[in-house]
Amino acid sequence: MYHFESDYLEGCAPQILEALRETNLEQTLGYGEDAHCALAADRIRYVFDCPGAEVHFLVGGTQTNATVIASLLRPHQGVLCAESAHINVHETGAVEHSGHKVLALSPRDGKISADQILAALEAHHTDFSREHMVQPGMVYLSFPTELGTLYTLQELEDIRKVCTDWELPLFIDGARLGYGLEASGCNVLPRDIARLADVFYVGGTKQGALFGEAVVFSNPALAEDFRYCIKQNGGMLAKGRLLGIQFEVLMNEGLYFKLARRADRLADRIREAFRRKGVEFLVENTTNQIFPVLEIDAIDRLSVEFGVERWQTVDETRAAVRFCTSWATAESAVEALESYIHNNL
Amino acid sequence: MYHFESDYLEGCAPQILEALRETNLEQTLGYGEDAHCALAADRIRYVFDCPGAEVHFLVGGTQTNATVIASLLRPHQGVLCAESAHINVHETGAVEHSGHKVLALSPRDGKISADQILAALEAHHTDFSREHMVQPGMVYLSFPTELGTLYTLQELEDIRKVCTDWELPLFIDGARLGYGLEASGCNVLPRDIARLADVFYVGGTKQGALFGEAVVFSNPALAEDFRYCIKQNGGMLAKGRLLGIQFEVLMNEGLYFKLARRADRLADRIREAFRRKGVEFLVENTTNQIFPVLEIDAIDRLSVEFGVERWQTVDETRAAVRFCTSWATAESAVEALESYIHNNL
Amino acid sequence: MYHFESDYLEGCAPQILEALRETNLEQTLGYGEDAHCALAADRIRYVFDCPGAEVHFLVGGTQTNATVIASLLRPHQGVLCAESAHINVHETGAVEHSGHKVLALSPRDGKISADQILAALEAHHTDFSREHMVQPGMVYLSFPTELGTLYTLQELEDIRKVCTDWELPLFIDGARLGYGLEASGCNVLPRDIARLADVFYVGGTKQGALFGEAVVFSNPALAEDFRYCIKQNGGMLAKGRLLGIQFEVLMNEGLYFKLARRADRLADRIREAFRRKGVEFLVENTTNQIFPVLEIDAIDRLSVEFGVERWQTVDETRAAVRFCTSWATAESAVEALESYIHNNL
Amino acid sequence: MYHFESDYLEGCAPQILEALRETNLEQTLGYGEDAHCALAADRIRYVFDCPGAEVHFLVGGTQTNATVIASLLRPHQGVLCAESAHINVHETGAVEHSGHKVLALSPRDGKISADQILAALEAHHTDFSREHMVQPGMVYLSFPTELGTLYTLQELEDIRKVCTDWELPLFIDGARLGYGLEASGCNVLPRDIARLADVFYVGGTKQGALFGEAVVFSNPALAEDFRYCIKQNGGMLAKGRLLGIQFEVLMNEGLYFKLARRADRLADRIREAFRRKGVEFLVENTTNQIFPVLEIDAIDRLSVEFGVERWQTVDETRAAVRFCTSWATAESAVEALESYIHNNL
Repeated sequence: MYHFESDYLEGCAPQILEALRETNLEQTLGYGEDAHCALAADRIRYVFDCPGAEVHFLVGGTQTNATVIASLLRPHQGVLCAESAHINVHETGAVEHSGHKVLALSPRDGKISADQILAALEAHHTDFSREHMVQPGMVYLSFPTELGTLYTLQELEDIRKVCTDWELPLFIDGARLGYGLEASGCNVLPRDIARLADVFYVGGTKQGALFGEAVVFSNPALAEDFRYCIKQNGGMLAKGRLLGIQFEVLMNEGLYFKLARRADRLADRIREAFRRKGVEFLVENTTNQIFPVLEIDAIDRLSVEFGVERWQTVDETRAAVRFCTSWATAESAVEALESYIHNNL
Repeated sequence: MYHFESDYLEGCAPQILEALRETNLEQTLGYGEDAHCALAADRIRYVFDCPGAEVHFLVGGTQTNATVIASLLRPHQGVLCAESAHINVHETGAVEHSGHKVLALSPRDGKISADQILAALEAHHTDFSREHMVQPGMVYLSFPTELGTLYTLQELEDIRKVCTDWELPLFIDGARLGYGLEASGCNVLPRDIARLADVFYVGGTKQGALFGEAVVFSNPALAEDFRYCIKQNGGMLAKGRLLGIQFEVLMNEGLYFKLARRADRLADRIREAFRRKGVEFLVENTTNQIFPVLEIDAIDRLSVEFGVERWQTVDETRAAVRFCTSWATAESAVEALESYIHNNL
Repeated sequence: MYHFESDYLEGCAPQILEALRETNLEQTLGYGEDAHCALAADRIRYVFDCPGAEVHFLVGGTQTNATVIASLLRPHQGVLCAESAHINVHETGAVEHSGHKVLALSPRDGKISADQILAALEAHHTDFSREHMVQPGMVYLSFPTELGTLYTLQELEDIRKVCTDWELPLFIDGARLGYGLEASGCNVLPRDIARLADVFYVGGTKQGALFGEAVVFSNPALAEDFRYCIKQNGGMLAKGRLLGIQFEVLMNEGLYFKLARRADRLADRIREAFRRKGVEFLVENTTNQIFPVLEIDAIDRLSVEFGVERWQTVDETRAAVRFCTSWATAESAVEALESYIHNNL
Repeated sequence: MYHFESDYLEGCAPQILEALRETNLEQTLGYGEDAHCALAADRIRYVFDCPGAEVHFLVGGTQTNATVIASLLRPHQGVLCAESAHINVHETGAVEHSGHKVLALSPRDGKISADQILAALEAHHTDFSREHMVQPGMVYLSFPTELGTLYTLQELEDIRKVCTDWELPLFIDGARLGYGLEASGCNVLPRDIARLADVFYVGGTKQGALFGEAVVFSNPALAEDFRYCIKQNGGMLAKGRLLGIQFEVLMNEGLYFKLARRADRLADRIREAFRRKGVEFLVENTTNQIFPVLEIDAIDRLSVEFGVERWQTVDETRAAVRFCTSWATAESAVEALESYIHNNL
């Protein structure tokens, strides 16, 4: 059986495992204050062209989102995002657990627009009862989105402008950042992410690391006392060097992007295979997640040989499923899938 | 100028003021453990026919909602309600401040249905990723709703059945409970509220009291340690007897209902006056809030003589406004309004 | 039986009741945006000589403390105070409920010193593990303290200096502020409170009002969006004018201070009566609370005629009890008590 | 330089690294629902003789403490523990962040007693104002304590009895559980921990794993919906199998205990070396942490060759330092230290 359920089915890129082995008996300070974390942070600042940024390493995405958001908002503020945003639907209310409302906007293909954000801000500002409502205090985007779609550079610039005009921090969730930046047709560069966001994170867990997300405050003024917040939210790893080592490796000689590119190209092949058979997609995208819409019984048959995630019912007879590729996807698995699609759909 | 902006424009029913004067120099224990609170609680148990209920008095509605909800939910649980629910839109995130997500369902005329609630519960229960989502832990309704509409007895029975089947507490926000129970066409009795809800509150602030909401746990098992929760949420009034005295008066000889009935009848007259002129309403209802849809310039003209609240834009030229009557509305004000409508719309 | 258990046994000063009666049918905007609140705020600014201050009215003390503290701290910060502080022992963890640790220092006679605060700040700052600890983010004092003692002007100046040096807001809980300012030997003036605190409150509940605390941000920069915070914490009274009216009356022609002075003088007489009989006190103070240490059986006998609060066991045979006077204490009650002490102790 | 600063200076036991390598390309379900986690849980149930226990794996200790405590308490409840407890001093207020007060008792050698707990419960229960105070809702112990001391079996039995009598859950923090169970003189067995605690955790981070803590609900009724709580608190590792694999290895053929025993014996040698020179200890203990009290200048000299943690000032000239051994401590490092102590102190 070939597995395409998610991009975190396997362990990690072998280079990381090797680095863990080599450094295993090194003795370092704990809690991220070691030389590996320092070097990894340097490499991230270099790759994202943000020399003044402050970089922190956390273990997982939900933790990272909750910690960043709680550290940026005052108690009466909430976070603007898409209804489909991970923080709104798949983090068991971690944002609310820290006291804040998620202010969800209706997305198109998983994305929200500068106009929507502006409208929400103006509506709040002009409402006579605004003090009875949660005040928008920041904007959260995913790049790529939960549906694998991408904001164009212009869309990001427009959102940035609204954030600047209204003095709201912009936070970009980059759990799959590499897959986005390497997608065909993406016109956003790493340095654009750093330039346009106040804070973003570079996802490791889904991109070849065992675990780990690198939070980058390209606006370092917002990072004050962030380490206290990490600790308070249970995200400060005792052996912090494990995070440093992993990002040191991923950011070395472009490995992070190389792994992502390969996965994106494999995803392109799967997309193309479906397209050739006239299969529609829940959403058009170019990253490592593919959402074909299939007949239920076709899904049942396919699921005998290929592990996929049931995503969403479309109508009585059809549903969307999700295929993920990753740094670890075997080319042979993609070939088997191409062949299956060609012959059986 | 005649004011119809809200039902809390004035002080309180004169009987209450008189009782405050009479009792002013009485010396009582603080924090609601006095004889007035005890008597008021008895009267509420009698009027709502729930002899085993536990009754507590709080100062305001937002405080009451947040305290009841926080006391009933475990950390990973949220509260199901209408998108238009007061807790979702007009309490500055008080529920989220206590750590819980508001799980908002799309309402019809301000109401949600048993089917919607059931669908949400089943969707959560059958979702493979449910542990990544907030678990529905209770249901919140307003009676009347924020749009002045009412659940029928059958609708409440149906919702109760779902709550019973799924072991979810049902909480009814009765900030305007009296206006609902006395509305023409209402087939719900006080004892139905107590029988169908696990916990509800009898609103005082908008129904003739200076302030105060009486929380009734008709399911007293849910009231364990509720006084700790009141105190923690800043709702335990030092001179608690002020709440007891007010509800003692309101629940005496049906005053609470008498005041509400009068306001509802005045509202009926206003509704009828609009109807005669062919004016449509944002929503059909029979309680003390009326939402006619008017041309913007008609609203501007009307606003010179009558204070109303701008409620909602309907289209380019029209908006809905809100008129409220209350225990304090002067009949002469209603007559002036009737006459204005007749002559000017 | 004469009651000295607390200073909130009765309703309110008759002038307030009269004002409530007179204004009862006035129609005002809700939520504290009425003319009475505006006038009351002006009078407070005048009396406390802080023309630029921002003034807000809340219902009760616990609510006020939790709201102010939550609005001032970032998530990883805590509030420095005395172990005996009301926020540490008698608010059912309201501060923790909003996510913050109470950083309690060991008090002397209910007071903490500038040196203690400085030592705590330095200890935190120099600790290698400080990011693993809660960061001191503000200082909370009660004036008078929970034991009825008073900071001298010099002590407050010293604490202010530490707060200024370390950029920490200083918050003074004035639940019994008047009793403090009018105490014999007090060398602190109203304007000193406003000058030295960043934010303080003028207690109404225990000083002649039905309820109500006036929060004064003499440092108005800290008041940003405070109304959102009030609403979120359930402290925004719908009929906000009730608070305005009460403080309008209390701040008129020095009524607030007159009532407090009278209570303090009655307390002085009780203290003197005990002193004449050689009774010791749990703590020496000059405000409206008196804590004589008596034999248990003397307490039992006394309690038949006089209501007091058992405060604290002192040794096997003795305990401290608390007598409170208030704006409402009858002179005859004090005379009866003086006579009892003279004849029976 | 030889390092004794902490027990998390290195990576992990080589057997774990090898297992990670071997399993790296296995494809598993995420979030702890894989076969490795299942097997690791089985082994833990076997080793701790608690066949009905529910086992969950989290990444770190602070996260584990906060998640367990938040899942067990109602909002108005707090957790009883020692003032020196990790949750009280070194977790940046994570417990308070989730809304709960830490109710700290004055410890002796890092331990609290059944009598102290009982006294706190009785004091709360009999206090007339108890509803104004945080209600004790559970008990937290560390085994070993933060000072490396151990509760005797009788002490644990006594505490258990109080918890049973008062229906309070008992939670044992076992961040260094193995070092405790293998200490010379310890009369507590693994199955005693499982029998006496309602929930405890088996620390991995400080005992040979890269990271990871295994939470064991030997009272499984308390584990309801715990996975939601893990997710909400950001502790659900996407590649959960990493935790399963590590505990699978540690619990195989007693490796966990073997590693701990070796570290304890090395610590015994260091203790003995100090003792021979007449050095006193901050506290007498038998686990892997040693707290000798030394002259400041002796510490300065020693620190040139040996990395230790400055723990606590004792008087003007002396301080306590902490030496830790671990699964990774080289015997040669201990020999060098023994020799240094012999020759230089």
